[in-house]
Amino acid sequence: MAESMTETEQRPSGVPYPGTPEGRRGTGDPGFAPHDGQEAPELLERSRALVDPAMRAAVESLPASMRRIARYHFGWEHVDGSPAAGHAGKAIRPALVLAAAAALGGPAARAAAVPAAAAVELVHNFTLLHDDVMDRDPTRRHRPTAWTVFGDADAILAGDAIQALALRLLAEDPHPAAAPAAARLADCVMELCAGQHTDTDLEHRAPEEVTLDEVLAMAEAKTGALLGCACALGALYAGAGPEEVAALDGFGRQAGLAFQLIDDVIGIWGEPLRTGKPAGADLAARKKSLPVVAALVSGTPAAAELAALYGKPYITGDSEGIARTALAVERAGGRDWAQTEAADRMARAMQELARAIPDPEAAGGLLALAEFVTRRSS
Amino acid sequence: MAESMTETEQRPSGVPYPGTPEGRRGTGDPGFAPHDGQEAPELLERSRALVDPAMRAAVESLPASMRRIARYHFGWEHVDGSPAAGHAGKAIRPALVLAAAAALGGPAARAAAVPAAAAVELVHNFTLLHDDVMDRDPTRRHRPTAWTVFGDADAILAGDAIQALALRLLAEDPHPAAAPAAARLADCVMELCAGQHTDTDLEHRAPEEVTLDEVLAMAEAKTGALLGCACALGALYAGAGPEEVAALDGFGRQAGLAFQLIDDVIGIWGEPLRTGKPAGADLAARKKSLPVVAALVSGTPAAAELAALYGKPYITGDSEGIARTALAVERAGGRDWAQTEAADRMARAMQELARAIPDPEAAGGLLALAEFVTRRSS
Repeated sequence: MAESMTETEQRPSGVPYPGTPEGRRGTGDPGFAPHDGQEAPELLERSRALVDPAMRAAVESLPASMRRIARYHFGWEHVDGSPAAGHAGKAIRPALVLAAAAALGGPAARAAAVPAAAAVELVHNFTLLHDDVMDRDPTRRHRPTAWTVFGDADAILAGDAIQALALRLLAEDPHPAAAPAAARLADCVMELCAGQHTDTDLEHRAPEEVTLDEVLAMAEAKTGALLGCACALGALYAGAGPEEVAALDGFGRQAGLAFQLIDDVIGIWGEPLRTGKPAGADLAARKKSLPVVAALVSGTPAAAELAALYGKPYITGDSEGIARTALAVERAGGRDWAQTEAADRMARAMQELARAIPDPEAAGGLLALAEFVTRRSS
Repeated sequence: MAESMTETEQRPSGVPYPGTPEGRRGTGDPGFAPHDGQEAPELLERSRALVDPAMRAAVESLPASMRRIARYHFGWEHVDGSPAAGHAGKAIRPALVLAAAAALGGPAARAAAVPAAAAVELVHNFTLLHDDVMDRDPTRRHRPTAWTVFGDADAILAGDAIQALALRLLAEDPHPAAAPAAARLADCVMELCAGQHTDTDLEHRAPEEVTLDEVLAMAEAKTGALLGCACALGALYAGAGPEEVAALDGFGRQAGLAFQLIDDVIGIWGEPLRTGKPAGADLAARKKSLPVVAALVSGTPAAAELAALYGKPYITGDSEGIARTALAVERAGGRDWAQTEAADRMARAMQELARAIPDPEAAGGLLALAEFVTRRSS
């Protein structure tokens, strides 16, 4: 099944960059493969080198009791307070902030946007802390979640404090974009909250009561909104006008939806080695992910079979049941739909990006990161 | 016992205003009774008239799912969405913002500070929503708490969204004080979180492991910090310098501690009719309130008796046990200490206020509000 997954992942790469009908120039690559130091892993590494010190300095300013929980959550410390080597995820969002700032305003804008990048990553992590409490998720980044270690109350409080920390970084930043960036980030938090609310609500509803528009809107609010906000903040720090900011927000949102679609495909068909998530995990949890809902609303015989399977709770170890469920999603067209939709969303993302940044050379970093998020799931 | 409570409440009134050794001039009142339209109820009413529309407009901008929970929490709507007449508490914090702005900058500063007043009240309410989840409090302002109605997840999410809304109000405010006010409010949120953490932590510890300094620090962080922040924000909007801002913060903090001490006395000795809180409620819950901890650390024979009583769980309906416990707190000096400490804190509050605003005429509104909070418990 890993083969098909590879196909899924590479499909978006086939979308040509709208600004250059002939595709990327001078790289010999038909898609938008990275070039000239704009490889995604290198961009992520450079972004972390800039943003990590700002994040750590910010966390240092938390009251001691909150700092301890934050350091654990970020993977900087073990529970006993001893230093841990792990870093906190890929940090794709701060990299998007810096790449957007650099694309529209060059290296000076990238340097200026570091507080905004740190603020976006802090917001992302505050929502993770709270979502884990609500979803009762026991692990995150291969470690026990904060609520399992410190209790619900402390995980909620640390999340609250980290949201405040994010917005304080912007309030203290003298950059002229700091205030509009703070307003936009706060707006995004409200959208993230509404998205998480809808997610919880959809999970409590019967499969036949959930529409595809609802899960798409939920995924946009939960995943697309913050990726869009990250790009928009970078644009604001580059002094971009409202239209460019809106286009970059759209780019991030559509790329975020493509990412979520592919993440949902991985949640059903693997691949466990790369993601740490066993194939079928989302099916075992009876999760109403995007391919599942697309399958359920397809009106096919397989949809009826899937609805019947989802109506019964998963019995631990029933790998045959999971395989049958995955096959039903596939036969009902859920997998094809998700792959096509992901490619479509990536195409829309490219259009938005070309609207703001017609030069594919300048857009290279953002393109590389968008491709990267739709290839990885963490 | 209501008589003694009256004595407690009036003690702070006896503290002369440091700026005028002869006390308040021209009112014939030996304390700092309100005058010239600066009566606290009138100030609160005028503040609500200014701040309520800003609060409602802000809540309107929340996503629909979050708005519904916010409107219920604020008492503007019943669960079914029909309008409710109730208003959301006394709203002392926004009144302090406006009174501080007016005292240092006149009516123009008061009008300009409305967004800051709304932001402070939104922050207060976000913490109430979350604290109720953590403390499993079933009622607030005589209504079922949001988590009992909408579930934990929605109450957490609505709190998150309301924090973001508060900071967005300041991020969108073009006033030159808006950014420093936002930074200060965000700092205050972190302190509130640390205070709630300590509160939860102290409640889980054995009575003999809790020191008076710890509960005082907790009360300052949980209650004093936001009252101080409210006054500081008003001063910032009046264009005050760092020393005046710090003095007003100190005023609010000390008044907040006085309030908490008196609230804790009411939590033991009543009065249920005025507060809706039955006498002895805090003792039944084995709460480590300020008078109880002062009693426990007194080294008296009554302290040992109190420790023994607190070591056993409360049996519903055991009013005799509650009466014995209250008597032990009193005999161990907990009540006297709390009353003296409250008066001392009010005196310190007066000193801080006189430092920033030597003219008692200008300070009248803040004085009236400080006296009011130490007389009421809601």
